Amino acid sequence: MGLPVVGMVGGGQLSRMTHQAAIAMGLSLRVLADASHDSAALVAQGVVVGSHTSLPDLLDFAAGCEVVTFDHEHVPGELIAALEAAGHTVLPGSAALLHAQDKQVMRERLSALGVPVPPFAPVSVAAELDAFAAVHGWPVVLKAATGGYDGKGVWVVRSVEDAAPVLASGLRLLAEQHVPLVRELSAVVARSPYGQAAAWPVVETVQQDGICVEVVVPAPGLSEELALQAQGLALRLAAELGVVGVMAVELFQTADGLLVNELAMRPHNSGHWSIEGSRTSQFEQHLRAVLDYPLGATGTTAPWVVMGNLLGGEGEPDLDRRLHMLYARDPSLKVHLYGKQVRPGRKIGHVTALGDDLEVVRSRARVGAHYLRTGAWL
Amino acid sequence: MGLPVVGMVGGGQLSRMTHQAAIAMGLSLRVLADASHDSAALVAQGVVVGSHTSLPDLLDFAAGCEVVTFDHEHVPGELIAALEAAGHTVLPGSAALLHAQDKQVMRERLSALGVPVPPFAPVSVAAELDAFAAVHGWPVVLKAATGGYDGKGVWVVRSVEDAAPVLASGLRLLAEQHVPLVRELSAVVARSPYGQAAAWPVVETVQQDGICVEVVVPAPGLSEELALQAQGLALRLAAELGVVGVMAVELFQTADGLLVNELAMRPHNSGHWSIEGSRTSQFEQHLRAVLDYPLGATGTTAPWVVMGNLLGGEGEPDLDRRLHMLYARDPSLKVHLYGKQVRPGRKIGHVTALGDDLEVVRSRARVGAHYLRTGAWL
Repeated sequence: MGLPVVGMVGGGQLSRMTHQAAIAMGLSLRVLADASHDSAALVAQGVVVGSHTSLPDLLDFAAGCEVVTFDHEHVPGELIAALEAAGHTVLPGSAALLHAQDKQVMRERLSALGVPVPPFAPVSVAAELDAFAAVHGWPVVLKAATGGYDGKGVWVVRSVEDAAPVLASGLRLLAEQHVPLVRELSAVVARSPYGQAAAWPVVETVQQDGICVEVVVPAPGLSEELALQAQGLALRLAAELGVVGVMAVELFQTADGLLVNELAMRPHNSGHWSIEGSRTSQFEQHLRAVLDYPLGATGTTAPWVVMGNLLGGEGEPDLDRRLHMLYARDPSLKVHLYGKQVRPGRKIGHVTALGDDLEVVRSRARVGAHYLRTGAWL
Repeated sequence: MGLPVVGMVGGGQLSRMTHQAAIAMGLSLRVLADASHDSAALVAQGVVVGSHTSLPDLLDFAAGCEVVTFDHEHVPGELIAALEAAGHTVLPGSAALLHAQDKQVMRERLSALGVPVPPFAPVSVAAELDAFAAVHGWPVVLKAATGGYDGKGVWVVRSVEDAAPVLASGLRLLAEQHVPLVRELSAVVARSPYGQAAAWPVVETVQQDGICVEVVVPAPGLSEELALQAQGLALRLAAELGVVGVMAVELFQTADGLLVNELAMRPHNSGHWSIEGSRTSQFEQHLRAVLDYPLGATGTTAPWVVMGNLLGGEGEPDLDRRLHMLYARDPSLKVHLYGKQVRPGRKIGHVTALGDDLEVVRSRARVGAHYLRTGAWL
């Protein structure tokens, strides 16, 4: 039928859910997976097993694709540039994606653009950290400039001694002020090569131990002014950085306003709610964007949507039995399982509740996620 | 994670969309497809190419599955019975499925249950047809007792001479009164082995040349009395026939009430709207039912939902270009493409529109389906 082939590097749950969206569009996502038991590799037809850090593997994979995109930020920038140099269409491109891969580059660029970020400085030795703390106070947040995710690569340190093992790790580090937060927000947008852009409502993200556990849509009690500011900031960044596809801008809401924490240039955990909660899911939108189709409507399908992440608990749960019990208790809850092996703290699925009453919707999402994780009712 | 393996015999769009639903449930549908380019075979991981009329192929396929179900009615009943005899779980079972495979068996059973059906009689020679017409009048509807679909296997004949080629075909035939219709309806329900059952709203189906072109949800202007009667009739039939999975009961609405036209025991074209239009899609519900999970909520997500079938037109359309144009015109329309080769009149996809105003929603669905088919705006 002459429809284009989209390849996604990485076989995680983002590829898995993008494949679901691709099916409706008459496509079948091609996936470059590390292993045949990866989340997306279990469900997609066009799976190539190979390494996302091998240029030959990437070139072979790209050869069958009209567009190559990503399920994670871990492909080295020079390999993405090599794909582009070889004539492949890679979206988001290496120049944009760098800002989601390297926190120092991102912070410096955003500062130059006048976008508020927490005070930061690159540090490599104790004296630099001490000097940063002398201005901004303890504790200090140390972040690996590259490679971190889900709380990994982030350390809150209370003294130079406390920071010693991190400083000795050899990682390139940023020091960042430990900003007093009201809460965390996320502004998810999409942008096409043509330059069309679309924003979903700004959401509140709830973290535990550095991992997102809950997303509430829209962010409760957020003023229209701040919501528009967050969306505008994300749309402006998407344009300034030349992003194509979905971008999530993770924000700190402080007493003084908004600060940008992180950027992700792909479908993002804070957008999973959109599968049922928006007329266009972030996965469909990402495909539309990288294919330069006009973007879909981002209106919501219910006044309140709450997504709860399902994190692996101890031991191997009998998910089949738990699904029986949960479906019986809440016939309206939407459960998404990623087909991943259970490990403590690993994201193995999510649940989405929708409805008219925030407290009811939030309770349903919490009960569902907690029951699937533990086998006990909250 | 210990989740069960579901196999679906047939690689058409119903398998394709069931696979989409399976992905969210942590499963990956296994598909027995006729060819590797079948609609579902293009997108699913666990595809076995084989024949649904070969017992060895069916047995091999079933060996890897905890439950076997169907995307069509064309597996011979004796082969399904052989799978059951070999100890495989097949749902719906052969005894139930027979009523969706053989119109004569279905009509006789429904008559015995007191369920209203059009007047009918088996006919094999001209004299029998003439006798039937003498009581019920011309024209008469002749139907192949088995194997028909999408208007195939159905002939409206005005005289014995008119019927001669059909009578000479060697097919087992039913004669049926040409009932004066108000319109056609469909009541889609699901039932689990435990006996739980759920019904979606009764829908209106619009046919052209024997093929469904449009489904309107709920059926406009249908009295609550008739809606409850249709749902009750479908739920009663599901229980009486021992159906497991989704069942569509196609109904004639006449001046005198409802008549059952056809039964389908699988996800059905008149339920495609439920992907976006109901909290639980018919595809997810079919999986829940055959796995004996509690069924999902069947409430709607918008006051009106209209699905338009995308039928193949002449020539090979540039669907990529048409998608661009259509997405630009209607960012809220949901397009589903099945990855099938285009042939005139073949169902190659569908579109779904949702909203508050029936006329607007219907117009959007019609404009979308017509444009994708023809490249021209209505």
